[in-house]
Amino acid sequence: MSEEEKAAVLIEALPYIQRFAGKIFVIKYGGSAMGERFTDVILDIIWLKQVGIRPVVVHGGGKEITAMLERLGHRAQFVEGLRVTDEAVMEVVEMVLSGAVNPRLVAAFNQHDGGAVGLSGADGMLLEVAKKHHPAGDIGYVGEVVHVNTALIEGLLDRHLIPVIAPVGVDREGRRYNVNADEAAGAVAGALGAEKLFLITDVPGILRRGPKGSEVVSKITAEEIRQLVEGGEIYGGMIPKVKACLTALEAGAKHVHIINGEDPHALLLEVFTDRGIGTMVLPAEEGSE
Amino acid sequence: MSEEEKAAVLIEALPYIQRFAGKIFVIKYGGSAMGERFTDVILDIIWLKQVGIRPVVVHGGGKEITAMLERLGHRAQFVEGLRVTDEAVMEVVEMVLSGAVNPRLVAAFNQHDGGAVGLSGADGMLLEVAKKHHPAGDIGYVGEVVHVNTALIEGLLDRHLIPVIAPVGVDREGRRYNVNADEAAGAVAGALGAEKLFLITDVPGILRRGPKGSEVVSKITAEEIRQLVEGGEIYGGMIPKVKACLTALEAGAKHVHIINGEDPHALLLEVFTDRGIGTMVLPAEEGSE
Amino acid sequence: MSEEEKAAVLIEALPYIQRFAGKIFVIKYGGSAMGERFTDVILDIIWLKQVGIRPVVVHGGGKEITAMLERLGHRAQFVEGLRVTDEAVMEVVEMVLSGAVNPRLVAAFNQHDGGAVGLSGADGMLLEVAKKHHPAGDIGYVGEVVHVNTALIEGLLDRHLIPVIAPVGVDREGRRYNVNADEAAGAVAGALGAEKLFLITDVPGILRRGPKGSEVVSKITAEEIRQLVEGGEIYGGMIPKVKACLTALEAGAKHVHIINGEDPHALLLEVFTDRGIGTMVLPAEEGSE
Amino acid sequence: MSEEEKAAVLIEALPYIQRFAGKIFVIKYGGSAMGERFTDVILDIIWLKQVGIRPVVVHGGGKEITAMLERLGHRAQFVEGLRVTDEAVMEVVEMVLSGAVNPRLVAAFNQHDGGAVGLSGADGMLLEVAKKHHPAGDIGYVGEVVHVNTALIEGLLDRHLIPVIAPVGVDREGRRYNVNADEAAGAVAGALGAEKLFLITDVPGILRRGPKGSEVVSKITAEEIRQLVEGGEIYGGMIPKVKACLTALEAGAKHVHIINGEDPHALLLEVFTDRGIGTMVLPAEEGSE
Amino acid sequence: MSEEEKAAVLIEALPYIQRFAGKIFVIKYGGSAMGERFTDVILDIIWLKQVGIRPVVVHGGGKEITAMLERLGHRAQFVEGLRVTDEAVMEVVEMVLSGAVNPRLVAAFNQHDGGAVGLSGADGMLLEVAKKHHPAGDIGYVGEVVHVNTALIEGLLDRHLIPVIAPVGVDREGRRYNVNADEAAGAVAGALGAEKLFLITDVPGILRRGPKGSEVVSKITAEEIRQLVEGGEIYGGMIPKVKACLTALEAGAKHVHIINGEDPHALLLEVFTDRGIGTMVLPAEEGSE
Amino acid sequence: MSEEEKAAVLIEALPYIQRFAGKIFVIKYGGSAMGERFTDVILDIIWLKQVGIRPVVVHGGGKEITAMLERLGHRAQFVEGLRVTDEAVMEVVEMVLSGAVNPRLVAAFNQHDGGAVGLSGADGMLLEVAKKHHPAGDIGYVGEVVHVNTALIEGLLDRHLIPVIAPVGVDREGRRYNVNADEAAGAVAGALGAEKLFLITDVPGILRRGPKGSEVVSKITAEEIRQLVEGGEIYGGMIPKVKACLTALEAGAKHVHIINGEDPHALLLEVFTDRGIGTMVLPAEEGSE
Repeated sequence: MSEEEKAAVLIEALPYIQRFAGKIFVIKYGGSAMGERFTDVILDIIWLKQVGIRPVVVHGGGKEITAMLERLGHRAQFVEGLRVTDEAVMEVVEMVLSGAVNPRLVAAFNQHDGGAVGLSGADGMLLEVAKKHHPAGDIGYVGEVVHVNTALIEGLLDRHLIPVIAPVGVDREGRRYNVNADEAAGAVAGALGAEKLFLITDVPGILRRGPKGSEVVSKITAEEIRQLVEGGEIYGGMIPKVKACLTALEAGAKHVHIINGEDPHALLLEVFTDRGIGTMVLPAEEGSE
Repeated sequence: MSEEEKAAVLIEALPYIQRFAGKIFVIKYGGSAMGERFTDVILDIIWLKQVGIRPVVVHGGGKEITAMLERLGHRAQFVEGLRVTDEAVMEVVEMVLSGAVNPRLVAAFNQHDGGAVGLSGADGMLLEVAKKHHPAGDIGYVGEVVHVNTALIEGLLDRHLIPVIAPVGVDREGRRYNVNADEAAGAVAGALGAEKLFLITDVPGILRRGPKGSEVVSKITAEEIRQLVEGGEIYGGMIPKVKACLTALEAGAKHVHIINGEDPHALLLEVFTDRGIGTMVLPAEEGSE
Repeated sequence: MSEEEKAAVLIEALPYIQRFAGKIFVIKYGGSAMGERFTDVILDIIWLKQVGIRPVVVHGGGKEITAMLERLGHRAQFVEGLRVTDEAVMEVVEMVLSGAVNPRLVAAFNQHDGGAVGLSGADGMLLEVAKKHHPAGDIGYVGEVVHVNTALIEGLLDRHLIPVIAPVGVDREGRRYNVNADEAAGAVAGALGAEKLFLITDVPGILRRGPKGSEVVSKITAEEIRQLVEGGEIYGGMIPKVKACLTALEAGAKHVHIINGEDPHALLLEVFTDRGIGTMVLPAEEGSE
Repeated sequence: MSEEEKAAVLIEALPYIQRFAGKIFVIKYGGSAMGERFTDVILDIIWLKQVGIRPVVVHGGGKEITAMLERLGHRAQFVEGLRVTDEAVMEVVEMVLSGAVNPRLVAAFNQHDGGAVGLSGADGMLLEVAKKHHPAGDIGYVGEVVHVNTALIEGLLDRHLIPVIAPVGVDREGRRYNVNADEAAGAVAGALGAEKLFLITDVPGILRRGPKGSEVVSKITAEEIRQLVEGGEIYGGMIPKVKACLTALEAGAKHVHIINGEDPHALLLEVFTDRGIGTMVLPAEEGSE
Repeated sequence: MSEEEKAAVLIEALPYIQRFAGKIFVIKYGGSAMGERFTDVILDIIWLKQVGIRPVVVHGGGKEITAMLERLGHRAQFVEGLRVTDEAVMEVVEMVLSGAVNPRLVAAFNQHDGGAVGLSGADGMLLEVAKKHHPAGDIGYVGEVVHVNTALIEGLLDRHLIPVIAPVGVDREGRRYNVNADEAAGAVAGALGAEKLFLITDVPGILRRGPKGSEVVSKITAEEIRQLVEGGEIYGGMIPKVKACLTALEAGAKHVHIINGEDPHALLLEVFTDRGIGTMVLPAEEGSE
Repeated sequence: MSEEEKAAVLIEALPYIQRFAGKIFVIKYGGSAMGERFTDVILDIIWLKQVGIRPVVVHGGGKEITAMLERLGHRAQFVEGLRVTDEAVMEVVEMVLSGAVNPRLVAAFNQHDGGAVGLSGADGMLLEVAKKHHPAGDIGYVGEVVHVNTALIEGLLDRHLIPVIAPVGVDREGRRYNVNADEAAGAVAGALGAEKLFLITDVPGILRRGPKGSEVVSKITAEEIRQLVEGGEIYGGMIPKVKACLTALEAGAKHVHIINGEDPHALLLEVFTDRGIGTMVLPAEEGSE
């Protein structure tokens, strides 16, 4: 590549840098998306921070939890995609999220001078939850976020640190709960009035049934999502993701993006180049832009 | 108890409250001391905070680590009291400390409105370590604290939060290390210029061989400790504890106290009543007070 | 008393300390209540300050004023409990309040490291008053508080100082006025939005005529007080006290307590133990709690 | 006077205003100088404040103390110009200074929107004193300033308030002492590193015996003063004044001025016009300017 | 003049100093008024600043622009008092205003320690303008202020600096425009909510046709001005001046004064003495004061 | 270019962004370098600012001054590269620099939301100079920087504004002087302790005589420059540039770069890519790196 081409790439990024400086981006980084491109994602997030964006990371860790439960002789049990979580399982959930996945992310950021601090949603009542009631019966310590304590997050952002949050919730009595990471990220993004919520996942975006099989939707409104869900065109594992989008948008986030963690530097390219990647979800009232 | 007696207890505490307001107390809370009196210790520390003292908690967790290693089929191995820590063991160490013990403490504080935030020594390079070299051979990821990043701790103290620190260290390359909790607490106390370091343990204080068997020393100088260690009068599991005392005192902490976590409200009574409990260690030059 | 009992007293205080930290308590300390228990009251107020409460003291001094007037050959004259205050009398009033009672209180606080600063209500227009018009005729320089300059008080509180205020008022032309200390305290408590107003007096609380003679009311609403006053059940010297309660509550104070300065540590016990002392007055709308 | 002449006066003041903006001036205003020109002095000091100078007032009150003592049947007793002060006398001293003279000054300032706050030297350990030992025997509660707590004064100055200080001292045990107002002003000026100390008195400046009787010295160094005192040329009531000058200069004040409170607007003219008034005392090392 | 008379002048100024401290005064200093009394005006403005007023200067420069245009071979062309400004002329306008008149003013202030900083209305979008559309046809780069960026001005005032503003405007596309200095000053005064706007010009105030020829109006309301303009009694070069008055008053300025820059210290005398100079314009609703 | 290649360019920049965040870069932008690539330079500097670097711009304008002097009938006269500057010439110099070149740069920045503020070295005594004495005789108002008032510059940087400085100096008497722009930039960089000084000029770097004609030196120490100047290998118009390098390095700047303003985005590529451009000058003591 010529020097001039290099410069063109940097200059192409300038208006995006100017537009997003000082804004909060919440990034949900799913465990299943932490693959070969792990370092790409870490560097992309540090890039955001260095140009004045305020990134907040919420991570998942389902596969590792299942693996550890198996090593310890538990059997993973799910009801409509939600892990049935008794007290013994919850201990393992927290141990893996706060004690394995979270520290690994923090270490990866800090190895590249990213200035990250690991938090559990139980720290300082960060993610206050209520027990989730499921029509199919008691699924144990599975929580629904009812309040996000944004002061602690903002305090870290003000000190130029990247908060990395494990999706463990806590209720008023101090009991810990398993929280779906997509939902947690949606709630955090909404509470912070984030400019953008990114769901980094292992699919290329929202898929809908098209004439030639499933295809990626590049832009969609909250309203349209609701219709697709009702019409059954969005289904299965995509449901909590689109629900997180709607939560975040309703609570005040501006845009949500679903991108594939295995695309090289998908996050950086989505934010700083003219060509978008994955699916962008807009609140209903901005759909006509 | 009469009303007047109650008032007398409160008033007895006043000069101590006045003397220690604004001072930092580092409290090492050992896993083996987290027994029946767990809630006492939590409330005592919140009491400290409420009267203007700035408490910092460093916890241990040896027994729980050993238990989890066994469940996962590892065999605990020690060289002169130090756990031989290969990469697989280190993963478990971190998982238990950051993912089980630390969250349990944070939750207990927050259940009583203690405003605690859990931290790993790997967060923001909080505990920077170097690999410990042992004459008996390579003991793996066992670290020695070489630098404490006090800014993060002080930032939380300034926001009236109680930092609760898991003794995991990190080196410049981002590798995590197992750190002895007594040593970690000593290093933190020294770096913060703490007024006091408390080692809450399962013995009543420093024991020395006396005429009628071992007896608790109520006051001792750093110099005297060195002589007792050399003379073999202090030995075994007490060695890392007295070493932590010396580290803290050399680095600038004012006094160290060793108290028994199973005495009811030992911490509160040691600080706020006229009768001391356990062993107080003074720096050499203040021994003649 | 056993160590464990001592600890129990301290721990009993913890929820109260947590509840009131950062709140303002206004304490009216009447001259007639400055007796044998003087040092108790001083220490109790310092205790409040040390656990994070923000105490403001307003004092009286009627007896000492009368004594000095007599030594100087004046004759004290009252109209319905209000001192007829000509210019010569006002000079003596101010001299005794600002020059004798106030400094004695400030000195007592500072002897116990209480960090007190004496203020007159004339300092910085602290207590702006209007001349009180009495149906029985001109009673001279007797003032009614029309505005409290809270900035000066809050400035001292922010510097961790205890403001000790002499109830001298000032009008826009700079004339000084005698102000009833109960009324002054009520106005200050209201203007500051105090959590509590304490009237430390020489009676055990609000008394009402009961079947076996007068008895202490332990809890009462503003509305009930008005009824008792109308019904003549509260009368005489208790009138300005209950009026101060109503003033403070109407202006925004949360609760008012009337306690006896001769009960040992009545203030401390009222605030930090489970058993209340004296009378608590609630605003009408909270009476049903 | 023509408009142009008026403008010339204002413009003449400009370089002085620029030179002294932000500087501290300590003004000792003696009771004997509070005569017909009282309002002049008050307005002059407010003028100083309005153009950015930070004035601090220390007042006297000897005559009023003597008058009150007489009314109360005491007999004033002096040893070499120092009032013999037993406990009963001290009570009257404090009462008159803090309760009569100080409030009158504060009121006068505030009547002209001067924003003054009255302080006693006993407030917040403002003037910490030690008992003065006199060769002629015990003279009671007469104190010598050993420390000035400047933080409280500076806090008020930062809020654009004029501190008005009664010369009452306090020792570590909380006992109040009578302090010579000149000495108190000198100590305050020194401790604050004041640009100027003014002694407003009832004489036109330092007088020395000259060929035609006593004459005013317009400029003199500390060293020359010492010689004149030794040579007996300065004597009597002028001694404490020149001692205050020396104290202030040694402790860090830049210049001291002795002016006559009965000259109309002497203070204003001394500071803001080209012609000096009274006596200016310079530290020895600047005498050769 | 006697000392006493001098003091009287200073004291006469005190209530005005107190009234205006902290207030913003905008001073439009016309090029034609920069004559023999130039230094008077500079010193008067520094005087304002030194007594706590916050002065903002907007200058003109018409004559110098015309002179430079002539030297460069351009011919000045006016349509109803507005300079026809093509691109070449605009370059000269900006060069003279920002490069000659503005620096000369800044230097004059700084020579007397006035702490001035020169600004162009194009700096930081200070004066955002829209092209002025004139019924008589295109008059080129002549702008009308549509927005004043007050943050930059207030930032300098907070640092005790005098902003000196050249009346160059800028539009959203970065094009520079010639702005009438009176209009610019009126817009700045309005946007800042200035206490006073002064138009320093070469006439003694607003003139109206009187029985004996034109006479100065000493006080007038905005409403009366509108009537005089409609009635043709105000006309010619006075029109933009009175329009600036109206703009400033409508936008929130309190009073406008038109004074003659050739009267010695007209500004100082107008502000700080009892006798007003020139014409004061009040908003309509205050005319009845 | 592929998406992956784009991302690679952005990621290549990351370590440079991290290294330079918060550092000051002084950029001297010569009039002769303001050619076709003008917008490139403006955008590059905004890029610096957006990623947390603090850019300060000093500009030249020699050619435009000469052109204007000619239009006004002056004849440019030089003594060893320094313009002979009488009062009439100085007026034109200032007019062109502050009134034409500076506003054009400020407007260009602001057109791209660069947040620039134009300053003259005469504003707030920014560039205090002394008259330059030349062996060849009096060259008039040519100044040498003796002091840089950094507070004003840092105040703007703290508000995220880009200071754009015209190289006009001022002496204590307020006289303006022509200052060589390279020298001014060197003095500013030194006074601010800049991380880097860039001289954007119309040559590709420092040239030295090589075997095949003149060649660009890519890295050189201050010491080597001195030797080359003495040996005559650096000469002519390059002399003030290398002198500015030495000034900046001696006064505390870390590195100086000389780059060609006509290379596309030379500044951006020099700072943020692995391949350096132009000449880098290091202080002598770092030459051995």
